[in-house]
Amino acid sequence: MSELKEISIAEFFEKNKHILGYTNPARALITVVKEAVDNSLDACEEAGILPDIFVRISKVGENFRVVVEDNGPGIRKDLVARAFGKLLYGSRFHEIRQSRGQQGIGISAAVLYAQLTTGKPAVIVTKPIGAEKAYRVHIYIDTKRNEPIVESEGEEDWYLPHGTRVEFEILGSYVKDRKQSVFEYLKETSVVNPHAKITFVDPDGSIYEFKRSSNEMPKQAKAIKPHPHGIELGKLMNMLKFTNATTLRKFLKEEFVRVGDKIAEEILSKAQFSGEEDPKKLGREDVVKLIEAFKSVDLLPPPIDCLSPIGEELLMRSLISEYSPEFVYAVTRKPKVYSGHPFLVETAIAYGGEIKTDKVILLRFANKIPLLYQQGGCALTKVVEGINWKNYGLEQTKDELPYGNAVILIHLASTNIPYTSESKEAISPIPEIMDEIRLALQDVGRKLKEYLDRKGRQEAKKKKEEVIAKILPLIAKKVCEVLEKDPVEVDRIIARIMGYLHVERHISERDGMKEVKLIVSNFTKAKREIKVLETCSGEVEAENAKISGGKYPTISWEVSLNPNEEVELKYLLRGEVLNKNPIVEGLDRALLSGQF
Amino acid sequence: MSELKEISIAEFFEKNKHILGYTNPARALITVVKEAVDNSLDACEEAGILPDIFVRISKVGENFRVVVEDNGPGIRKDLVARAFGKLLYGSRFHEIRQSRGQQGIGISAAVLYAQLTTGKPAVIVTKPIGAEKAYRVHIYIDTKRNEPIVESEGEEDWYLPHGTRVEFEILGSYVKDRKQSVFEYLKETSVVNPHAKITFVDPDGSIYEFKRSSNEMPKQAKAIKPHPHGIELGKLMNMLKFTNATTLRKFLKEEFVRVGDKIAEEILSKAQFSGEEDPKKLGREDVVKLIEAFKSVDLLPPPIDCLSPIGEELLMRSLISEYSPEFVYAVTRKPKVYSGHPFLVETAIAYGGEIKTDKVILLRFANKIPLLYQQGGCALTKVVEGINWKNYGLEQTKDELPYGNAVILIHLASTNIPYTSESKEAISPIPEIMDEIRLALQDVGRKLKEYLDRKGRQEAKKKKEEVIAKILPLIAKKVCEVLEKDPVEVDRIIARIMGYLHVERHISERDGMKEVKLIVSNFTKAKREIKVLETCSGEVEAENAKISGGKYPTISWEVSLNPNEEVELKYLLRGEVLNKNPIVEGLDRALLSGQF
Repeated sequence: MSELKEISIAEFFEKNKHILGYTNPARALITVVKEAVDNSLDACEEAGILPDIFVRISKVGENFRVVVEDNGPGIRKDLVARAFGKLLYGSRFHEIRQSRGQQGIGISAAVLYAQLTTGKPAVIVTKPIGAEKAYRVHIYIDTKRNEPIVESEGEEDWYLPHGTRVEFEILGSYVKDRKQSVFEYLKETSVVNPHAKITFVDPDGSIYEFKRSSNEMPKQAKAIKPHPHGIELGKLMNMLKFTNATTLRKFLKEEFVRVGDKIAEEILSKAQFSGEEDPKKLGREDVVKLIEAFKSVDLLPPPIDCLSPIGEELLMRSLISEYSPEFVYAVTRKPKVYSGHPFLVETAIAYGGEIKTDKVILLRFANKIPLLYQQGGCALTKVVEGINWKNYGLEQTKDELPYGNAVILIHLASTNIPYTSESKEAISPIPEIMDEIRLALQDVGRKLKEYLDRKGRQEAKKKKEEVIAKILPLIAKKVCEVLEKDPVEVDRIIARIMGYLHVERHISERDGMKEVKLIVSNFTKAKREIKVLETCSGEVEAENAKISGGKYPTISWEVSLNPNEEVELKYLLRGEVLNKNPIVEGLDRALLSGQF
Repeated sequence: MSELKEISIAEFFEKNKHILGYTNPARALITVVKEAVDNSLDACEEAGILPDIFVRISKVGENFRVVVEDNGPGIRKDLVARAFGKLLYGSRFHEIRQSRGQQGIGISAAVLYAQLTTGKPAVIVTKPIGAEKAYRVHIYIDTKRNEPIVESEGEEDWYLPHGTRVEFEILGSYVKDRKQSVFEYLKETSVVNPHAKITFVDPDGSIYEFKRSSNEMPKQAKAIKPHPHGIELGKLMNMLKFTNATTLRKFLKEEFVRVGDKIAEEILSKAQFSGEEDPKKLGREDVVKLIEAFKSVDLLPPPIDCLSPIGEELLMRSLISEYSPEFVYAVTRKPKVYSGHPFLVETAIAYGGEIKTDKVILLRFANKIPLLYQQGGCALTKVVEGINWKNYGLEQTKDELPYGNAVILIHLASTNIPYTSESKEAISPIPEIMDEIRLALQDVGRKLKEYLDRKGRQEAKKKKEEVIAKILPLIAKKVCEVLEKDPVEVDRIIARIMGYLHVERHISERDGMKEVKLIVSNFTKAKREIKVLETCSGEVEAENAKISGGKYPTISWEVSLNPNEEVELKYLLRGEVLNKNPIVEGLDRALLSGQF
């Protein structure tokens, strides 16, 4: 057997950089930007600062230089080297709350990729709030030891009051006008982060600005303690081993959310403990009993404040502004738990309008990060494909994305997003999560169906009317001929069949005066309060009607009609009626008939 | 900013176990078996032992116990604990040669998963070759430190002369009769590892045996040095830093494959070095020049012996035995390099016969490991979907798997398989690899097309014949009636039109003797060497023919006919002809006509 050796995590990823998303130059460039921008957004939000982020990509010979600058709180000098120059090192891994970075790998991986492909160190400039000067450092990673190598460092003046600037030189390739591009990533990022302002300068020097559309900070996600539901046995054993609590009862109350005296007692009695046991002394069998007890007690879901959803309104707003659809709907579900990690699902659907696509467009987000790659390998996609969209009015070939002019958006927010790999582009098929997504999609699906049915009914009605309007007159004509009667007025009949409010005007002359008669018939199914107006030239006389004076008097009637009620409005006129048809106010034109 | 902490790789995977393939109980069970079996196969092959592997899955209360036992070389006592109880620790990571395990994570991850879900230690029993007794050890992992904890250990007798046995108790779920199952994994494994014998006992106690179909060890993959093509700058800088070579020339010749004196000189002159430089003293710019020089020199591909392909014959054999298709073809490509890692691609296609499927069945293998999950997220799948299969005779909706009764097999062999994650279920889209796969698939695709065309032509011919055979007699009959002639023999005419070899028999009586006349006409396009036979009862006389004696003599003629040549075979007979039609040997029945 050949020699066994220890492998440093940095060596591992140096050899397997594709796992981190560095599969080809184009994607590598996007990944580097992504890691840096995600970091900046996290930093700003933690410090309660509205993010103002500057991204510049420029060509340097064969390679690309990536600069990302933020107005965040900056980083303490003594922490910079390891924060950027050591993999598996970070602040967010051990915390239970929603954040973009959670692995402690991303940004150091960018440093690793830069030195691997161009041999250039990463340059970090950072100025903590209140600091006089900025700290500039050039960093390599010693892959054999997974430790930072500081090539050079120094202090300098900086125009920003506080913030951080990172600079990488990498082997990359810049692509435009593609779903998978830096531009698209930044665009989608700004869509779900309206509180952020992002400025992007591309290699040609063109400047794009993604404006701040909301000055309100998203509610800061708070760190919480683990939730008893779904926690693994091994995890619990570790917690018991390292707790400071002196008794099991204290342990339960202090180390978990949603566990107060009452719940603690319930758990203890179900697991047959007194509560006075020393947590450190519990054996495997005891822990098994505890887990069982956890499962059997009803608990509130984890507090939502460890999560920071996008919100239904914002989801709809951004879909409307991006795609101007004719229909949009969004749902934010309640938080749930998988393996002790709180998560919640948001979905939205936009339909029709200016959306023109063959298969629906699927937008995937995790903790407000757009996922551009590995759509096929993502559980979010799988759920969409697994739903029978025919039930919701969309065409679909079995187990594929549905067809139709629609955009489906899914956002998974969690204290620990179960990415399929460190490249953070696809979600693992965790059953609890997939169920939630399915339910959320069915919610929006049902609303879509309602809309499409309503639309369908209206179109059907329109067709019906057209037919009737064509045929009826002919029938009438024939009938009249046969019966040797004068032709009848069919509009009125159509109006009755179609359920319209119908208005007719009959004018008869009597000794130099015109007598105008308006017959208003309410064939609709509801009571109608309307106003009928006629404008004339010359003198008018009318009963129970308002008449405005002047050269061109307007006569107006307030009319209230129950279904199938009819009213006759009369006036005498020496002159002309000016409006072609009687004017009706207070009613949808679609419900109005007569020769309008 | 919250506190920055170091994260141990074990902690990381404890929290992100889905990255390792532990997304749900069913898959977890498969993954554990997979890791153990892959290890066993690697160990046996390295020691040149024909693998004999025993797998048992049994229910233990809510959980499952997995036992995997091999007849491998065993593991040295002092190495066992870390080999199983420490992540990122192994023998194969630093070697450049094809092996199943390459990350030093898999088996320890199984240990981690077991303790996380059931709190039970892994039990390893191992007996190195020549050892008296076996060593048994119970192992946990200290996740905070990523170090093994030995709970108990001891020596014991063991019935195996040498080998290793691992035992895990895990939270799992056993599924049957599914593409994604332990059974399927073992089946597909044995398909591409015919030298291995695998015995599987499922939870019901049913025993399945995957027999050893070849006693020949696959050629052992040899460890090689890196190949200059595609090596990254950072990697090269590291090599220079840690080399023992005293001069750059020595460095090039000693640390790379395919670099001899001539190539070394070529590289040095292109990069403008004397060759006497101290490798350790080279700066970044020098290394850039070296890399450029590397790219510009022509090099042999890396030696194939670091790879161990399955082989075209075996691929076809196993597809035939598994699917009994009507057509099968396989291709093994030459090795290529990506980022300095040698790799080669094999593809095979099976069509028709007993294959009944809607979309084609895709079988993915990496270093002889079947990939069961994440088909959608795998570059292998992407390439298949990206090919226009209509060119090769299969139906296809754009960018999806083609339709048709076919099985497509892809095997990627490499010294470093670019898995998308540590779960080793999907391949990253590395451009060089995708190109090779595309070419390989097009090879087999073309062969499929050829076959389908040939088949098409034959069917067309068959149709044509049917038509002619129906119509011609009718025409003939009519013609004869009109001309008041006797009906003509049309078979012969059909034979001429269709290009058959036609045989007719005419019998005439003469003073008590039958005179039999066989007219053999070769209407085919080729010269034909055939044998014509007749079996009779009674006496026979024939010229230039063989006559077997006995009660039922057989007369046989060796006949050689050029296209459009005709021959008459005569014999006299006092008795009966026994065979309904003359027997013709040495010709495809499909080319034969007459009343056969």
